[in-house]
Amino acid sequence: MSEYRHIVRKWVKPEDLNQHGALFGGRLLQWVDEEAAIIAVAQLGRIDVVTRHMSELNFVSRADRGDLLELDYRVTRFGRTSMTLSCHVENAVTGAAVLTLDEIVFVSVDEAGAPVAHGITESTSGTERLRGR
Amino acid sequence: MSEYRHIVRKWVKPEDLNQHGALFGGRLLQWVDEEAAIIAVAQLGRIDVVTRHMSELNFVSRADRGDLLELDYRVTRFGRTSMTLSCHVENAVTGAAVLTLDEIVFVSVDEAGAPVAHGITESTSGTERLRGR
Amino acid sequence: MSEYRHIVRKWVKPEDLNQHGALFGGRLLQWVDEEAAIIAVAQLGRIDVVTRHMSELNFVSRADRGDLLELDYRVTRFGRTSMTLSCHVENAVTGAAVLTLDEIVFVSVDEAGAPVAHGITESTSGTERLRGR
Amino acid sequence: MSEYRHIVRKWVKPEDLNQHGALFGGRLLQWVDEEAAIIAVAQLGRIDVVTRHMSELNFVSRADRGDLLELDYRVTRFGRTSMTLSCHVENAVTGAAVLTLDEIVFVSVDEAGAPVAHGITESTSGTERLRGR
Amino acid sequence: MSEYRHIVRKWVKPEDLNQHGALFGGRLLQWVDEEAAIIAVAQLGRIDVVTRHMSELNFVSRADRGDLLELDYRVTRFGRTSMTLSCHVENAVTGAAVLTLDEIVFVSVDEAGAPVAHGITESTSGTERLRGR
Amino acid sequence: MSEYRHIVRKWVKPEDLNQHGALFGGRLLQWVDEEAAIIAVAQLGRIDVVTRHMSELNFVSRADRGDLLELDYRVTRFGRTSMTLSCHVENAVTGAAVLTLDEIVFVSVDEAGAPVAHGITESTSGTERLRGR
Repeated sequence: MSEYRHIVRKWVKPEDLNQHGALFGGRLLQWVDEEAAIIAVAQLGRIDVVTRHMSELNFVSRADRGDLLELDYRVTRFGRTSMTLSCHVENAVTGAAVLTLDEIVFVSVDEAGAPVAHGITESTSGTERLRGR
Repeated sequence: MSEYRHIVRKWVKPEDLNQHGALFGGRLLQWVDEEAAIIAVAQLGRIDVVTRHMSELNFVSRADRGDLLELDYRVTRFGRTSMTLSCHVENAVTGAAVLTLDEIVFVSVDEAGAPVAHGITESTSGTERLRGR
Repeated sequence: MSEYRHIVRKWVKPEDLNQHGALFGGRLLQWVDEEAAIIAVAQLGRIDVVTRHMSELNFVSRADRGDLLELDYRVTRFGRTSMTLSCHVENAVTGAAVLTLDEIVFVSVDEAGAPVAHGITESTSGTERLRGR
Repeated sequence: MSEYRHIVRKWVKPEDLNQHGALFGGRLLQWVDEEAAIIAVAQLGRIDVVTRHMSELNFVSRADRGDLLELDYRVTRFGRTSMTLSCHVENAVTGAAVLTLDEIVFVSVDEAGAPVAHGITESTSGTERLRGR
Repeated sequence: MSEYRHIVRKWVKPEDLNQHGALFGGRLLQWVDEEAAIIAVAQLGRIDVVTRHMSELNFVSRADRGDLLELDYRVTRFGRTSMTLSCHVENAVTGAAVLTLDEIVFVSVDEAGAPVAHGITESTSGTERLRGR
Repeated sequence: MSEYRHIVRKWVKPEDLNQHGALFGGRLLQWVDEEAAIIAVAQLGRIDVVTRHMSELNFVSRADRGDLLELDYRVTRFGRTSMTLSCHVENAVTGAAVLTLDEIVFVSVDEAGAPVAHGITESTSGTERLRGR
């Protein structure tokens, strides 16, 4: 499978800071999950997609107000009902690694939340699968 | 100048809705400006960049909860202290145009807020200009 | 038509600041649109009102944390299905202009989003038109 | 003293709702306090003003998504270091009372937070006292 | 009745600050109400519970960014359709009182918002009443 | 070591929902991290504490608007500069597991962000360690 890569950039703003002026770990995870979900939806061509699993997460270095972060996603695997991405977050200015995460697994589900086969085996760089609905 | 294009995708979530369940015009403008600022910063290689002007805006069709939007930016001009982008927003599923905006002008400023020459004449697809600081 | 004027005051709080500590342009636009919508609804006596158009916007000077802004709206025109406001934003302490916007156009719509005549030709300072529903 | 009256309008949006779809009491209190603070600052001509006291609050009827509320403030008293407002919140469409609050007391403070005399004895409808700083 | 006590801790973060860098009174009230509602729901075993009344509130001392607050609730009374809590907020580091509030009254309501008897006379420390639904 | 347990309850509100009306995975992670940080700070008696690591996360079942969640934390280990918690999230009404997370590791750091020994070997149920600063 040819690997699909998608980069999202985020500012660290005052509303994202914790009690000692650094980016909240939880806010970063919110971004990582939300942007991954957008990718999963475009890949699988359906909005009924849920986060099922994340592999271990390492917060390598802190980010501060005004930092520009790059969330660098790669689509690494399509299963029958699932798809897997990795995410590497780094500081766009210093190049320092901020967060590493090898696997975020999304599952395609039906109305009742049960897994359903998605039939996708290759990544795409566009949103044409959503348009085909 | 070869035109640089950058696409950002956004979900319309419950917190983005107005009193009758559609995407708030103001929330969409907040996204359009914030993502444009991130592009401007990467292009100009400096974070001291402010929004100076937007040309007229047309809200072509409404967006609803659960819609996936594509904000399609193009860098259209570099001035001495400014740079200009256009932004076309469309529904990623239906392809319907949501917002059209021909010009967002950012200006590079010094600490006191006065315009300063940025020296950039060509667009880039990366963040290497920020790293060179 | 006698011109109706409505002033709204807003604090610039930490959650409204961008990466270099000034008010986000996009946040200001969110306020401008949201408060304009409240005025439009009271004028037209119906909540099914959407933003259709904004004329060009000029961000004249920056606003900082702790600044008190005045959003000074005037109702400038009633069309058959539309109404138009202007908005001038200034710093309530220094009097400096922050944003100028000549036209925000709202359209009265039906359930399906199609324009409908609103029958209003004069402005009001109260909310009695909403109460008459 | 001639009584000064100030009306602020707020939409009840999805982000303001509690677990059963009604306006959160706490969100309404946030609005009541924040808008009262803006009035206090304009009346006293200084931003160093803090909420000191609220009299008992009665949540008379619930508000729902899409409701337009009117927060009707009156400046009722100037003390040596304090000022007092009342606030009556009602549904702008139905006219139903939503919240009644007889007294919100603000105190003018110095850098260390100690009360300082403000010298104000009459209300104003503008922001000229802030401009005189 | 044996008194039930419940403590909730909150950080004061940048997004909670007012124009001069202290915790917004209104934000604190939002927390006080929201956490009280969670307690009321667990005590009464039903989610249809609304805030009806608060006794007078005194903001005793200010809180700043990075402060850790303790909201100390006690269930003080069960009525036929209501229940009453008190809330004392203090700075967890300095022990300074921040807010005192003797009574927050919640009422159990039906779908139409009319008070209904809840049948509860004793407090509980768990959520088993919700599970019994 | 005697194990310390701490339970935090959270409502799922409209602002926490994703594009198909379920709780956002990322919002849940934000809560899990933020509340864990509050526990870590009270245990270690210092606010300079950062999230360093999370073990794999399993999103076992979805949560919907109006659900009441219980975040059940246990302090499982004190290292020289670190401490470890587990977190199990369940629906307080149905008892269904929502998220399982075996390890969240916090590290005590100095001003420059370097790990420092914290000297703590036993858990506490209060905040007296913060008060001793």
